[in-house]
Amino acid sequence: MVKRSYQLLELAQHLDAVLVGDPKHEISALATLQNANAHSLGFIANPAYKKYLTSTQAGALLIHPDLQDEFSGNKLVTTNPYIAYARASALFSSAPVPTVGIHPTAVVGENCVIASDVSIGANAVIGDAVILAEGVVIGPGCYIGDDSLIGKNTRLAANVSIYHGITIGENCILHSGCVIGADGFGFAPQAEGWLKIHQLGGVVIGNNVEIGACTCIDRGALDDTWIADGVIIDNQVQIAHNVRIGKNTAIAGHSAIAGSTTIGANCTISGAVAIVGHISLTDKVHITARSLVSASISEAGSYSSGTPLAQTKDWRKNAARFRQLDSLATRLIKLERK
Amino acid sequence: MVKRSYQLLELAQHLDAVLVGDPKHEISALATLQNANAHSLGFIANPAYKKYLTSTQAGALLIHPDLQDEFSGNKLVTTNPYIAYARASALFSSAPVPTVGIHPTAVVGENCVIASDVSIGANAVIGDAVILAEGVVIGPGCYIGDDSLIGKNTRLAANVSIYHGITIGENCILHSGCVIGADGFGFAPQAEGWLKIHQLGGVVIGNNVEIGACTCIDRGALDDTWIADGVIIDNQVQIAHNVRIGKNTAIAGHSAIAGSTTIGANCTISGAVAIVGHISLTDKVHITARSLVSASISEAGSYSSGTPLAQTKDWRKNAARFRQLDSLATRLIKLERK
Amino acid sequence: MVKRSYQLLELAQHLDAVLVGDPKHEISALATLQNANAHSLGFIANPAYKKYLTSTQAGALLIHPDLQDEFSGNKLVTTNPYIAYARASALFSSAPVPTVGIHPTAVVGENCVIASDVSIGANAVIGDAVILAEGVVIGPGCYIGDDSLIGKNTRLAANVSIYHGITIGENCILHSGCVIGADGFGFAPQAEGWLKIHQLGGVVIGNNVEIGACTCIDRGALDDTWIADGVIIDNQVQIAHNVRIGKNTAIAGHSAIAGSTTIGANCTISGAVAIVGHISLTDKVHITARSLVSASISEAGSYSSGTPLAQTKDWRKNAARFRQLDSLATRLIKLERK
Repeated sequence: MVKRSYQLLELAQHLDAVLVGDPKHEISALATLQNANAHSLGFIANPAYKKYLTSTQAGALLIHPDLQDEFSGNKLVTTNPYIAYARASALFSSAPVPTVGIHPTAVVGENCVIASDVSIGANAVIGDAVILAEGVVIGPGCYIGDDSLIGKNTRLAANVSIYHGITIGENCILHSGCVIGADGFGFAPQAEGWLKIHQLGGVVIGNNVEIGACTCIDRGALDDTWIADGVIIDNQVQIAHNVRIGKNTAIAGHSAIAGSTTIGANCTISGAVAIVGHISLTDKVHITARSLVSASISEAGSYSSGTPLAQTKDWRKNAARFRQLDSLATRLIKLERK
Repeated sequence: MVKRSYQLLELAQHLDAVLVGDPKHEISALATLQNANAHSLGFIANPAYKKYLTSTQAGALLIHPDLQDEFSGNKLVTTNPYIAYARASALFSSAPVPTVGIHPTAVVGENCVIASDVSIGANAVIGDAVILAEGVVIGPGCYIGDDSLIGKNTRLAANVSIYHGITIGENCILHSGCVIGADGFGFAPQAEGWLKIHQLGGVVIGNNVEIGACTCIDRGALDDTWIADGVIIDNQVQIAHNVRIGKNTAIAGHSAIAGSTTIGANCTISGAVAIVGHISLTDKVHITARSLVSASISEAGSYSSGTPLAQTKDWRKNAARFRQLDSLATRLIKLERK
Repeated sequence: MVKRSYQLLELAQHLDAVLVGDPKHEISALATLQNANAHSLGFIANPAYKKYLTSTQAGALLIHPDLQDEFSGNKLVTTNPYIAYARASALFSSAPVPTVGIHPTAVVGENCVIASDVSIGANAVIGDAVILAEGVVIGPGCYIGDDSLIGKNTRLAANVSIYHGITIGENCILHSGCVIGADGFGFAPQAEGWLKIHQLGGVVIGNNVEIGACTCIDRGALDDTWIADGVIIDNQVQIAHNVRIGKNTAIAGHSAIAGSTTIGANCTISGAVAIVGHISLTDKVHITARSLVSASISEAGSYSSGTPLAQTKDWRKNAARFRQLDSLATRLIKLERK
C-alpha cells in the first residue's frame, strides 16, 4: 500500500483550485468532514453538511466560493468541489499497482498479441488469438476467451470471465466476478421442451466503461450486444442479449434489462429496476428504484412504478383493496352518474 | 474461430426444408433480415418482419409456406422456421472447440473417474472421487468439489463453482460464475443471534439443463435441491435450498425462488420474479416480469403483480392514494349504502 | 466423504437432551420425518408436522416435552428441538475437511503472515502483506488482495474474490463467487459523462458472519463499509459502499442495499428487498419479500410494499385503475361533500 502526501499548493495546482491558507500544509488523506484530521482534505459539495463546517478538524477543505466565508481553516476554493474531490480521490488511491509482465503461473494461448507493458496476474488464463493492448491489466484468475480484444489501459480485477469473440474498449474497469459474453437466453419451443439457439453474436463495449462485480452482459443472438462509451454499470446487473445502451448512461446495482431492448444516452437507471425486452427508451430517461419498465419511453423525464412502504398490517388492507380496484372505480362512476 | 460454409442443398437436407432456388448457393452465416448479405441465411418467424422481405439482401431465407410467395430469392421452406433457425444456429456456432485432455496446470484429486475424452481447462481444480463422464468439458478456473458427478457431454464454461456431492446430468451447459451447491440459508434463532444449520443435502440436476452466468442453486438442508430434465435458467437466478423445479420449466434472468418451494413442469417464469418459500406452483403457470408470488398457485394460467409505470410526478400522487385505499373503499361503500 | 455414526446416548449428552429409549441405538444421519429410516434422527420443531409422528420410520426423534407422548419410538427430549437439530447438523456434515498447508499451485505474495494450520487451496492467489490467522481455510481459485486480514477459523469456499485492504473477522463463512471490496459505485457528473471517484475506504466484517454465493459488498468511498458480528447474508445480495449493518441482522437472497444506508441490529430483511441509499433503519425491523424501502424507519416492526398476485387478466384491469387512483379519490371526496 503506497501512502502519499501532498502540500496544499501542489493540490491547488492539480485541482485548479484557489488556495486560501498555508501552501506548505501537508495533506495525506481524503476524509469526510466528520472524520477528518489535521492532515486530511475534506470537501463540502452538499449544503446539508454545512453544520459540520464549524466542528470539522480537516486540515483543508474543498469548498465553493459561496461557502468559503463559513470556514476559517485552509481551503481550496473551486466552483465544483465534487469534481475536485473526484479528481483528488485518484491521488490518494491505495489500490495496489499491478506488476508489469505475465505471471509465471498464467497460461497464455497461441497467436496472442500482448503489448509489452501488460500485466497478467497469477493463474489467469488467456485463450488463443487474444489481443491485449498497451497498459492492460488482467487480474489473477481471470479468463479471456479466444479472439477477444481488450483496449488500452483497461483493467480487469481478479476472477473476471470474458468469453470468446468479445471486444472491450480503452480505459475500462471490470470488477471481480463479472461475466461478459455468456450465451443469451435463446431457445425455440418444441413439442417437448426447448431447443437451444446458439448465440452467434458477440459483445462490443466502448471506452471508459465501468462494469460492477458479478454483472453479466450476454453475447448477442446474431448481432452484437452493445455498450457505448462512458456507460457505468454497478454490481449484479443483468444485461441480456442484443441490448444496446447509449453513451454515458448509468445503471445502478441489481437492475436487469431483458433482450433486444435499446436504452438511450445519458439515462440514469436506479437500483433494482427491471426493463422488459424488445422496447426502447429515449435519451435522458430517469427510472426510480425498483420500477418495472414494461413499454417503450419516447419522452425524456423521470418514471416510476410500485407502491409505497407501509406497516405490514396497514399494507395488507390496502393491498387487498387493490384487487377490487376496478370494481371500486366502476362503482364510483355509477354513483357519480346518479 | 472456425468459419463454415454450406451449400443450400446441404442446409435444406439438414434442416428438413424444401429448397426453392439455387442448390449450390453458398451460405456462410446466419443473419437478421436487416443485416443479411448474399452469403447469409435469414429467417422470418414473426409476421411483424414481413416488411423486410422486399429489401433484405439475404442469400436465402428460412420461410413458412404461407409467406413464400412474398420473397423472390432462394428459400428453404419449412412449417417451423424458428425451429429451423435454432437448428441452423448450431451449424454456424463460433464457440471454440475445447481440447481433449487435462491441461497440465489443472489439479485433479484422488480416486476420480474421468472419461478419456474429457476436456479439463487450465487452472481448473477437481476434488477427490469426482466422476466426469464421456465428453464432459470443464472450463478454465472451474472448481468441482469432492464426490460430485457430471454426466455425458455436459459443458462448464470458465470459473464455474460446484461444491461437493453434487450430481449434474447429461448435455447440460453451465455458464461462468454460476455456483451449484453452496449452503442453503438455514439458521436457527438463538437467544443471541443465529446458529448455523449445516446443509446436509445435495443438488441433483437432470439432463439438458442450461444454467446461466452467476446463477446460484443451493444444496438442500436434509434432502436434495432438485432440477428436472430440460429446465432452462437464465443469469443471476437464485434457487434456494430444497426447491424443486419440474421438467422443461424456463426461468428468466434475475428471478429468485425461496426455500422449499416446488414449481411444476412447463412453467415460464419471466425476469426479475420473486417466489416466496414453502409454496407450490402447478404445471403450466406463467408469471409476468417483476411479479411477487406469495402463495401457492393450483391452476395453470398467467399471473401478475405490481403497478404500471408512470411519470414520477403522476405516480407519486397515485402511490400516496394507495396508502388510503382501504379507507377510500370503506367510504365508497358507505356512500353506496346511502 | 466421512460417514459418522453415533449412539443415542452420545447424542443425548452432546445435545443436552433427555434420552427416552435405547441408549445404544446407532444413528448415522439426520432426516426429515417423511424420509427417515431406522438409523436416522428426525426432529419435530413445527406442530404442523405432527401428522407424520405415527408414520415416521425415524430411529429416534428430537422432540419437545409437550409432544413426547405422541411418539412411541426412541426420543431425545429437549425444549428447543430446532436448536438441537441445528447442533446435530454439525455432527453429520459431509463437507470435506480441508488439508492443512499451502497447495503447491497456490501463489502467495510477499510479507504475508500465515498461521501454520491454514489451508490454502489449489490455484488460490494471495497478495502481499496478507494476514491469515489460525485455522483459516482459503478455497481453490480464491483471490485475496494485498493488506487484507482474515480472522481465525474463517473459511472461504472456492473462487471467492477479496480485494485489497479488507478486514474479515473470525469464524466467518464466505461462499463461492462472492466479492468483497470492489469499488463502490461513485462517480461525479461532468459536462460530458462521469468522473470516477476512487474508493479509498475498505470493508470491515465482524465475527460469525456468513456471506452467500455471488453476494457483493463494496468498499467504502472514504470510510469503511461495515458488517457487524453475527450478520447472516444469503446469495446474490448487493451491499453498496458505506452501508452499515448491525449485529445479528439477517438478509435473505437477492436483496440490495444502496450506498450509505444504515441498518440496525436484529433486523430481518426478506428476499428480493431493495433499500434505497442514505437512509437509516432502526433495530428489529422486518421487511417482507420484494418490498422497496424508500425512507428511513425509526420504529421497530414489520413493513411491506407491493401489490398482491392475481390472474393477469384481472391484474391488468386493476393496474390500469391504479393510474387513476388520485383522480378516483378526488372524485370520491367530491361525492362525499354532496
